[in-house]
Amino acid sequence: MAKEDQITKWFAEQANADANAFPIGIGDDMAQVRAGDDGTVLITTDMLLDGVHFDLEQCTLEEACHKAMAASLSDCAAMATVPLCAVVAVSLPVNFGEDELKRIHAGIIDAGNRFGCELIGGDITKWKDVAQRFAVNVTMLSKPSGYHPPVRRSGAKDGDVVCVTGRLGGSIRGRHLHFTPRVAEALALTKAALVHAMIDVTDGLSVDLNRICKQSKVGAMLEMEQLPISDAARDTDDPYNAVFNDGEDFELLFTLSPAEYEKIRDLADVEVIRIGTVTDTMKIQALWEDGRIIDIMPDGFDHL
Amino acid sequence: MAKEDQITKWFAEQANADANAFPIGIGDDMAQVRAGDDGTVLITTDMLLDGVHFDLEQCTLEEACHKAMAASLSDCAAMATVPLCAVVAVSLPVNFGEDELKRIHAGIIDAGNRFGCELIGGDITKWKDVAQRFAVNVTMLSKPSGYHPPVRRSGAKDGDVVCVTGRLGGSIRGRHLHFTPRVAEALALTKAALVHAMIDVTDGLSVDLNRICKQSKVGAMLEMEQLPISDAARDTDDPYNAVFNDGEDFELLFTLSPAEYEKIRDLADVEVIRIGTVTDTMKIQALWEDGRIIDIMPDGFDHL
Repeated sequence: MAKEDQITKWFAEQANADANAFPIGIGDDMAQVRAGDDGTVLITTDMLLDGVHFDLEQCTLEEACHKAMAASLSDCAAMATVPLCAVVAVSLPVNFGEDELKRIHAGIIDAGNRFGCELIGGDITKWKDVAQRFAVNVTMLSKPSGYHPPVRRSGAKDGDVVCVTGRLGGSIRGRHLHFTPRVAEALALTKAALVHAMIDVTDGLSVDLNRICKQSKVGAMLEMEQLPISDAARDTDDPYNAVFNDGEDFELLFTLSPAEYEKIRDLADVEVIRIGTVTDTMKIQALWEDGRIIDIMPDGFDHL
Repeated sequence: MAKEDQITKWFAEQANADANAFPIGIGDDMAQVRAGDDGTVLITTDMLLDGVHFDLEQCTLEEACHKAMAASLSDCAAMATVPLCAVVAVSLPVNFGEDELKRIHAGIIDAGNRFGCELIGGDITKWKDVAQRFAVNVTMLSKPSGYHPPVRRSGAKDGDVVCVTGRLGGSIRGRHLHFTPRVAEALALTKAALVHAMIDVTDGLSVDLNRICKQSKVGAMLEMEQLPISDAARDTDDPYNAVFNDGEDFELLFTLSPAEYEKIRDLADVEVIRIGTVTDTMKIQALWEDGRIIDIMPDGFDHL
């Protein structure tokens, strides 16, 4: 298990929240909070750091802040929920001023506008020490679609089909700054079919599939020849390693029954790539065309 | 106007949110979001930085994270709302590990538990560069009390009484790490009386009263001999300067009609200190005992 997951698990074990007030707690892409008698909102928070999640020597402030918003929008997608609004906090290097703030704002607004997600508040802080780098924290609220409950990581069932919405690997070569959060795709998929479990691929297929498997208490068998390898991954020394471990693909990874899969396999405007099957083995395995089966270890891109 | 306020005003001017979906937007202590037909939640986000809002050479990680939660709880109080839950994101220096994460968690939980505020999610990131310092971002949700609408900054009226809930100035000498967010006091005040405008004193009485005045389009006359000077402020060369400009007092500053003031002036368990009157002058003035009147410039502690 990735170190981050071990810590998250420990945090979740300490929690003692009322399940009626908080139907989804620590450990999924978003938590869910009851508000009033008939409404709930979902919430996610993500901190992105200069030199870790982006590099301001190689991208613009607009791109960095666009990515921060897009990463949270991808969380909304991973739950098949509708983005509502965001609050954004930034810590500014000492030399940042009004111009930089307007560029930060432009990146946030551009990403939010594409998905009807309003910027409704924030916080601006500034470092005092010249060595300190830029950080941006997006917290986003979404709401259930109304036609499908929020999709958790824990609902995968033995026999389910495993799918992704696009090609994987090599995102660091550029796509990680310019990906499209799969909000529309998630809503279309869950309008057409009952989806058992879903996550967005942030830390690599091996890590994120392992999260679904661990939380659903299942395993998975991947078919190697079905894995959708991105062009950027094909250009590397080890394309399969890129697919399993690079991360930041921000594609949806989901499972559903074979009967439900038939309803979405040819859905307009959503690429659905079947990559394997949920099993009861409790581990992730991969089947090569020649019949060999190997175990896949979840050690994808881990920020910790 | 403080630089932070000018920027916030610019951000608010860019916003175009539907007032029904978002009854309170950018520019108050919290924004308000409609969820379902009968419910709303309020949201605030705050980033606290090592070396700016606390100094890890002079305080513990538990104290720093306790302060981060308490600052957000103080925002809930400033709106007279009930804290619900928080998500917390941290950026860790390279040498931080599991022990530090457990101490961060302890500080968060300790502060949250005192006000029934659940930790329901978060994000853990780590710097790659050894020079980078710790930051903690708390986003908190609250709900309306049910008996009084959320109290905004913009409702002060000419003739209102201006009050604070405690003594001001010199917080940096220790109180800024150990203050009690005035959640219970805010709920008690708004249960007993109609409060027109409220804010928590974070950037100094002059700055925060100016925020109420600007947003309410009023002025204020303070009575200098009524100002509650903390012991820490009395120990400084210029106690009045400390009261007006130090900030981080986290006391409530509020206005209400003289008739409503009579209902709360002797309220049990809430210290109510009358410090002045709302006027139509559009500026903040102070009346000395000898009858002299001076203008107060809003230039309190500004993190920018």
